[in-house]
Amino acid sequence: MSGKIPQFSDIQEAHKRIKPHIHKTPVLSSISINEIFNVNLKFKCENFQKVGAFKFRGATNAVRLLKKQEAEKGVTTHSSGNHAAALSLAAKQLGIPAYIVMPKNAPEIKKKAVEGYGAKITFCEPTLQAREETLSEVQKDTGATFIHPYNNFNVICGQGTSAKELLEEIPDLDVIISPIGGGGLMSGTVLSAKSINPEIKVFGAEPLNADDAFRSFKQGVLIPAGPPNTIADGLLTSLSPLTFQIIRENLDGILTTKEETIIEAMRMIWERMKIIVEPSAAVPLAVVIENRYLLKGKKVGLIVSGGNVDLDHLPF
Amino acid sequence: MSGKIPQFSDIQEAHKRIKPHIHKTPVLSSISINEIFNVNLKFKCENFQKVGAFKFRGATNAVRLLKKQEAEKGVTTHSSGNHAAALSLAAKQLGIPAYIVMPKNAPEIKKKAVEGYGAKITFCEPTLQAREETLSEVQKDTGATFIHPYNNFNVICGQGTSAKELLEEIPDLDVIISPIGGGGLMSGTVLSAKSINPEIKVFGAEPLNADDAFRSFKQGVLIPAGPPNTIADGLLTSLSPLTFQIIRENLDGILTTKEETIIEAMRMIWERMKIIVEPSAAVPLAVVIENRYLLKGKKVGLIVSGGNVDLDHLPF
Repeated sequence: MSGKIPQFSDIQEAHKRIKPHIHKTPVLSSISINEIFNVNLKFKCENFQKVGAFKFRGATNAVRLLKKQEAEKGVTTHSSGNHAAALSLAAKQLGIPAYIVMPKNAPEIKKKAVEGYGAKITFCEPTLQAREETLSEVQKDTGATFIHPYNNFNVICGQGTSAKELLEEIPDLDVIISPIGGGGLMSGTVLSAKSINPEIKVFGAEPLNADDAFRSFKQGVLIPAGPPNTIADGLLTSLSPLTFQIIRENLDGILTTKEETIIEAMRMIWERMKIIVEPSAAVPLAVVIENRYLLKGKKVGLIVSGGNVDLDHLPF
Repeated sequence: MSGKIPQFSDIQEAHKRIKPHIHKTPVLSSISINEIFNVNLKFKCENFQKVGAFKFRGATNAVRLLKKQEAEKGVTTHSSGNHAAALSLAAKQLGIPAYIVMPKNAPEIKKKAVEGYGAKITFCEPTLQAREETLSEVQKDTGATFIHPYNNFNVICGQGTSAKELLEEIPDLDVIISPIGGGGLMSGTVLSAKSINPEIKVFGAEPLNADDAFRSFKQGVLIPAGPPNTIADGLLTSLSPLTFQIIRENLDGILTTKEETIIEAMRMIWERMKIIVEPSAAVPLAVVIENRYLLKGKKVGLIVSGGNVDLDHLPF
């Protein structure tokens, strides 16, 4: 019903395939943040990935697996931003066209990035229905292959390479925490992490104001996102059948966080680590802040999902 | 008249002395910035140094060279911010007191940092005269040793270790550019760089609105800073006799930049490199932007001096 589940060997092959095209992102830590929360945090910095987000891993894996006659017609997707930029650059590097359906209210910086990579943008209303309808039209017109942002086997395999790199660098993590939006990063992360170390705990991090994954996980039924109202603009989407199945079967839990804590976490990373992370990427630290006694003394890997922020609209 | 000039062996000894206490900062680059300006830039990221600025190198070297009976009475300085934080942490690590004279208008983030390191702050008017008078009183009261932010042999040796690390990592740079405020970083940089590679060109980078070093260098006479009016709050001070002598005898030139270009450069580094740099630290990239034809095709090291920014008062 929800499709084939990736094996770790699929993620390993994806990693070999995309390695020449992606950045191996650095793992950073902050003595002062560790002291404040009495925890040993390792930040896997996908904000330094190409296009400024982990999404480039999955998009690169997906486009490079297309057959020649598919590839020639190009690729298309709908995305609030980072997947759009990622797919556009991945397509550009292969020399094939990309057609992007994007909600009108996407952050300016993400629109500009997509245009900069030479993709063709079609704007739509910011609803899932409008995105899907517009996408159908674009597909009909162009014959392009739809690369779903997360309900896609090859995309999930690509996203799983970030946690794989993290555990290759720091094998003795007790816990890994990744943000959950549509669940592509989360799925890849948990599949990689549990394959490499079955003892590791893997948690999702989600804003309370967009906690559809939390409720779906708890109730065992895929609950679509209500109208989300969170600063974490990368986490507005609902889980898909495929990502829900992987998450339900493998994840140890989902931790949620208030908006104020997301902003506090984001500002703390900016001020103390001197790196730029987008609100969604601060959600794992926010759940650490809200669950500091649970994680006390643990070695915790956090997937910092991206760094694409509109500097004209900061929350502080 | 201006005191003893450091030899490269002094900088080498300083490096051995401070190595266990400082971060070896990373060297980053940005494909997109290089493409825009047709230059090969290597950013030496002192924004990731302890206290968020290169100043920790010089301060650590200076406090660790004090005699026991001097050290016990503590250290004191006047500083617009980063040297104050650096001296405070260096003193704290040695277990000795630090007394800081700070202009009332110093950025909030820098005041907080100094307090956080346990130093005692005395505020004064934001003029050189007020700073020096207040410092005299503090010295009289405490017996603390004055560690000048830049007119100090040991401080200059410490600051020179950043360019030394940069050239050890990337030996084939054609040019190094460092910001000039009081000239401590510039002096250390040019002494290191010219000792390691006599062929290398070394330039200072200075805001047009605080171009006392540019005018001093050009006229061969130390001209004190007028009332400076620049966003680069780390570059408000005048050269000292010692730093002026080193700069006059060794530097290849000083390049100046408009305020708008400093803001453009800062924003470009934030958006494209996802790292936080303070305005002063963006001045080297700003002079690259304004002199791109001069530097076309060259491999250029930029000393990114610090990352302490008041997020409540950004210029964009």
